[in-house]
Amino acid sequence: MGVDIGGTKIAFAVGDASGRLHASSRRPTEPSGRAEADLERIVGDVKRVVAEAGLSLAQLAAVGVTVPGPLDPERGVVLSPPNLPGWRDVPVAARLREALGIPVFLENDANAAALAEWHFGAGRGLRHLVYLTMSTGVGGGLILDGRLYRGTLASAGEIGHAPVEWEGELCACGQRGCLEAYVGGAAWTRRLRAVAPSASRVVALAGAREAVRPEHVVAAAREGDAFALSELARWNDYLARGIVWLVMALAPEAVVLGTIASAAGDALSLDPVRAQVARHVWPHLAKALRILPAALGDQLPYHAGISVAVEALRS
Amino acid sequence: MGVDIGGTKIAFAVGDASGRLHASSRRPTEPSGRAEADLERIVGDVKRVVAEAGLSLAQLAAVGVTVPGPLDPERGVVLSPPNLPGWRDVPVAARLREALGIPVFLENDANAAALAEWHFGAGRGLRHLVYLTMSTGVGGGLILDGRLYRGTLASAGEIGHAPVEWEGELCACGQRGCLEAYVGGAAWTRRLRAVAPSASRVVALAGAREAVRPEHVVAAAREGDAFALSELARWNDYLARGIVWLVMALAPEAVVLGTIASAAGDALSLDPVRAQVARHVWPHLAKALRILPAALGDQLPYHAGISVAVEALRS
Repeated sequence: MGVDIGGTKIAFAVGDASGRLHASSRRPTEPSGRAEADLERIVGDVKRVVAEAGLSLAQLAAVGVTVPGPLDPERGVVLSPPNLPGWRDVPVAARLREALGIPVFLENDANAAALAEWHFGAGRGLRHLVYLTMSTGVGGGLILDGRLYRGTLASAGEIGHAPVEWEGELCACGQRGCLEAYVGGAAWTRRLRAVAPSASRVVALAGAREAVRPEHVVAAAREGDAFALSELARWNDYLARGIVWLVMALAPEAVVLGTIASAAGDALSLDPVRAQVARHVWPHLAKALRILPAALGDQLPYHAGISVAVEALRS
Repeated sequence: MGVDIGGTKIAFAVGDASGRLHASSRRPTEPSGRAEADLERIVGDVKRVVAEAGLSLAQLAAVGVTVPGPLDPERGVVLSPPNLPGWRDVPVAARLREALGIPVFLENDANAAALAEWHFGAGRGLRHLVYLTMSTGVGGGLILDGRLYRGTLASAGEIGHAPVEWEGELCACGQRGCLEAYVGGAAWTRRLRAVAPSASRVVALAGAREAVRPEHVVAAAREGDAFALSELARWNDYLARGIVWLVMALAPEAVVLGTIASAAGDALSLDPVRAQVARHVWPHLAKALRILPAALGDQLPYHAGISVAVEALRS
């Protein structure tokens, strides 16, 4: 079973190790401000979705729970996620294990997404895989030598906050020049609203300058709009910088890109990124590397928690 | 037993898993141009050093051989090291195994150095460790989750060729802006000879402008020379850029620095690098991170091959 606790939505799913879903459900997170109450409601949902799958709790092998960091996956404790008010040092794994009577494993959302794309998505069968997602922020997860690499304090994979421009743009994290400050959805949206010409197709599609979002750039770029194409080229270029570093340092077999890059597709984003990366890494590494769009799309939240459970049971 | 085949010297050592050396010896590499002949001579040296240790070949558990890349550690084949003429697709492990009758394992020099510092040096007992050495070039090795991470094509850890300045200085590898183009000994030496003021202390210590080397900068900086201090500050800054990336992406417990950084020491290099890194990574990562000088110094070649053998037998 997987439970994906996001800032805005919670997804529940029952599935098996092959990636097949037996039941799934999604609802707004609506945090009450009290973690205890939120967890009680989650327990109720879990029981309901398990029943919908025609199963009993005892038939589940484990529950994988994903939450935005920071958290301690070994102790199963959520530390202080900024978008879950009242959740501070919450022993989520222990609480749910008590209530459900089966093993519960906790993982941060970016690592869980990497596991999901590896077990069930674009990265199936690979040994070394980097997952990068550009939604509001930029999250990353590393599958190295056939397992999730978490690093010290379970803090590895924060590629969104590695510098692509030394002392560059201020990032929401407080550092400067982070990859996220250039390719994160929130940062890019802020920039677009500042620089988009009022008469541009991007603004026309959005309805108003202050409503411009990355998807309008992608749509306008599809129509050949010059401003949109130049913005997307800049975005691709910064993303490529991050990937070049990862390739030289980690020599992955694949980099799997979620959200904006996978939505924009081959012609507008993936191919330019592939070309730019190939120009900046050694030829034998470029030849061995695949840059792939994430495969799970909006089904990711259902697979994320399940892949955490599958991985925990496997290792 | 360890055999460290360098471009200029070969080191032989017999030791145990605790890091104790029982016999060691070093000689110029003097490549003959024919790998077969070079290997025959190496076999003779191995037998001699084993005898000096008061042992027989049959008493050795394994031989670890280190060679500058590129090589294939799984097949034990040296591909085409630029500084070993006549060595092309040489099945070193198989040849030596035949001649010596014991298991032989092959590893590239940077990975072997990382293993040596981890087993016997500054990184003992750590779980996640990045090793970086700045000699002629910049080599790197990654110990992640308590084992050597090699990546696709055994090409991981090429941190020396990750970009610290996008489209920056041309590197010897053909790419631009690589860490090595700023902090590698050869690149820095070239720069120093171009920019050192004729009347500077650095040139005085070297005897002539065209004789300036990084060690003269370190010596002049110790005396408080302004040019040397500014060059070293620039060098430290670029090194810190590379480390910041590694910390955000991999969250290692320690970064172990060899050659120039460890020779320059705390005040001139390590402390400024530590401070610069701490300013550019998240506080909890900075707090958890140690930036350490390599501990093995000129004994590294003896320990490198032995650590390869120890690691191969352990896993």
